[in-house]
Amino acid sequence: MSLLNYDADRLAQFTEEITHKYEELKGRNLALDLTRGKPSAEQLDFSNEVLSLPGDNYTAADGTDCRNYGGLNGIADIRSIWAEVLGMPVENVIAGDASSLNIEFDLIAWSYALGNNDSPQPWAKEETLKWLCPVPGYDRHFTITEHFGFDMIPVPMTDEGPCMDTVRELVKDPAVKGMWTVPMFGNPTGVTFSEKVCRELAAMDTAAPDFRIMWDNAYAVHILGDEFPEIHNVVAMAEEAGNPNRFWCLSSTSKITHAGSGVSFFASSKANLDWYSSIANVRGIGPNKINQLAHAQFFGSAEGVRSLMRKHAGSLAPKFNRVLEILQQRLGDYDVATWTTPEGGYFISLDVVDGTATRVVQLAKEAGIALTAAGSSFPLKQDPNDRNIRLAPSLPPVEELEIAMDGVATCVLLAAAEKAARQA
Amino acid sequence: MSLLNYDADRLAQFTEEITHKYEELKGRNLALDLTRGKPSAEQLDFSNEVLSLPGDNYTAADGTDCRNYGGLNGIADIRSIWAEVLGMPVENVIAGDASSLNIEFDLIAWSYALGNNDSPQPWAKEETLKWLCPVPGYDRHFTITEHFGFDMIPVPMTDEGPCMDTVRELVKDPAVKGMWTVPMFGNPTGVTFSEKVCRELAAMDTAAPDFRIMWDNAYAVHILGDEFPEIHNVVAMAEEAGNPNRFWCLSSTSKITHAGSGVSFFASSKANLDWYSSIANVRGIGPNKINQLAHAQFFGSAEGVRSLMRKHAGSLAPKFNRVLEILQQRLGDYDVATWTTPEGGYFISLDVVDGTATRVVQLAKEAGIALTAAGSSFPLKQDPNDRNIRLAPSLPPVEELEIAMDGVATCVLLAAAEKAARQA
Repeated sequence: MSLLNYDADRLAQFTEEITHKYEELKGRNLALDLTRGKPSAEQLDFSNEVLSLPGDNYTAADGTDCRNYGGLNGIADIRSIWAEVLGMPVENVIAGDASSLNIEFDLIAWSYALGNNDSPQPWAKEETLKWLCPVPGYDRHFTITEHFGFDMIPVPMTDEGPCMDTVRELVKDPAVKGMWTVPMFGNPTGVTFSEKVCRELAAMDTAAPDFRIMWDNAYAVHILGDEFPEIHNVVAMAEEAGNPNRFWCLSSTSKITHAGSGVSFFASSKANLDWYSSIANVRGIGPNKINQLAHAQFFGSAEGVRSLMRKHAGSLAPKFNRVLEILQQRLGDYDVATWTTPEGGYFISLDVVDGTATRVVQLAKEAGIALTAAGSSFPLKQDPNDRNIRLAPSLPPVEELEIAMDGVATCVLLAAAEKAARQA
Repeated sequence: MSLLNYDADRLAQFTEEITHKYEELKGRNLALDLTRGKPSAEQLDFSNEVLSLPGDNYTAADGTDCRNYGGLNGIADIRSIWAEVLGMPVENVIAGDASSLNIEFDLIAWSYALGNNDSPQPWAKEETLKWLCPVPGYDRHFTITEHFGFDMIPVPMTDEGPCMDTVRELVKDPAVKGMWTVPMFGNPTGVTFSEKVCRELAAMDTAAPDFRIMWDNAYAVHILGDEFPEIHNVVAMAEEAGNPNRFWCLSSTSKITHAGSGVSFFASSKANLDWYSSIANVRGIGPNKINQLAHAQFFGSAEGVRSLMRKHAGSLAPKFNRVLEILQQRLGDYDVATWTTPEGGYFISLDVVDGTATRVVQLAKEAGIALTAAGSSFPLKQDPNDRNIRLAPSLPPVEELEIAMDGVATCVLLAAAEKAARQA
């Protein structure tokens, strides 16, 4: 029976018990952090070899001295490995610095200031700008479009991607210039877009000629089990469908080797890459080829990337499993929460009783457990149901994670009991 | 006597001799490149140690694990070294990726799209945008402001910086939003701004409240002799003068360790840094701390930077000296060219007979010697006198450089003789 349907006596007794548990929790003076999807020290150790590379071997396969200027689109050594990882021709993949986010920001900022290769005019000159935001989604995506003044339109997610009926309807508006996606092991839902959804996104008609789908494939190889899912070549799908420039695809090594000191990748049509490079060539002389070469030497091949990702899975899966077990043990009997069971990626998406997510995060904070702010997975950080909490199990050691999750479960139950009391 | 004043017989004889010399030059089928200021392999070798760093020592002095996310403004390890190099408090210096150019582009692009911290509105909304361009200057600077549609206003250079009477007059126009500078060992003039000019730039009244001087201190420690010049703290000067946000100062390790895989630095007032960081924090999670730590370990201290720059001087000075000797030997008697004698930086600025620079570059190209395109040092690549050629002596070994410069001198003389014949 749902906690929300308890009669007054039973609710009062439960509330007394859970309040007592919560006071005990506070008494432990914890300082635990589940806010962001950071790799753990154990995971970072897997790639320590890259920290001594390239050493004296600073010459790329084509003879380029990686220590000097030049090479705007990155070196073939790492581009060819990543093209194989992504299942795309190397001509469609260029390698940059840092993270996907940097390139995503630039793509939008440059389209805003200058227009992209299909724009009638710079986006800044449009009266209204709109952007589709499948929810729940990645907070840092929404912050970018917020910064440039887009109206962000939430799109519900299904278990095979964004609701395509909604998307097809919304893109009839010429003010809709694009759409955020995390198409594989999504942040925070864990959903991987089906081939059908990929093809529909590639083929649909849009009113804006310069409409773009930001395809942030951040977790393409970030499995928790044993099997790597197929990666759909949406650039080829879009080409076949007559919309060759539809997708801006991003990827990076940030959660593969070391976060923040990796290599980013931009994969797209030739026309899109040429447009991007024409501005990147004004912004700078080229990416860090030394770091690209170090990564190419460390991986060796696409299979080297997959081998490394299996190690990550071996480190992450037990943590995800413990979180899921604790959620089931502590919350399973009360019908106060649902959660995702991801097969990859970095997050578990937890839906609590409507109207209590903010309270859960506050209770956890007062007990020394930092959670991502409620609402973070929605545009403007506004969850219309105040329901969703993003859990990031990767960083803490498993013992700390268990303590934190048991604490979170207590907070979920206490907030639910409070709400039940208000409703009674 | 100037070649241009030769009588007809003497000119005909000279033209025959120099044409013969030029045909000989073409017959050698050279393939030499003096186009860009790239460090030589010998110079790059000085820093090979950085290619194996940081190895297992991936923890910053404050305990930060540099392998993980975070640290938007860079690590103190490298910021403190560079603050000492630049003679500024560390609070005014943040460390980023890649090169100064990237930050310069972003500062202008973000001011254009969003406005900076002193802007009444985004620059994109202004009817007209103007930018001051001391000439000759750095071609890649001018390309950035060209890209965002600025009217670029040339300002003549003196031997202590831009002509300040001209600057003070021009900045009375509120459409003038800023100014490019390379204040020490300038590209291509080699001029270092005097303290007087620095103070006048800091103190002058400008009509635009968000006027900025892009202070690209790319060659602050790039000496050719033995002495490091004083670096003026223009941020402090501007603060004293009541214009605290006037200067955006840039610097990088690009021509110190390895070009393109270095660390960049942005030094400015707290308000300017806060504005920049507020947008950089939307664009990404932070710079490559691993590369910053590797550089900090390699340098050890500001004195370590200066020690390395002495090695560079030891490699570069003989090349600059040979270029100057050849120019004097081959051109000194004919009064057809003047050139700079830089004490630092990467360039020699050569002025040939008016109206012949394009022809000299073309003749050189046909003889297999690639020079920077004539006009490159001017906005829109338009040298009003078709006079200036930028020579970059750093990359080739000295034997190749001698051949190339001897060839360039032949081209200068032939082009001058052609012009003299037309005028006769």
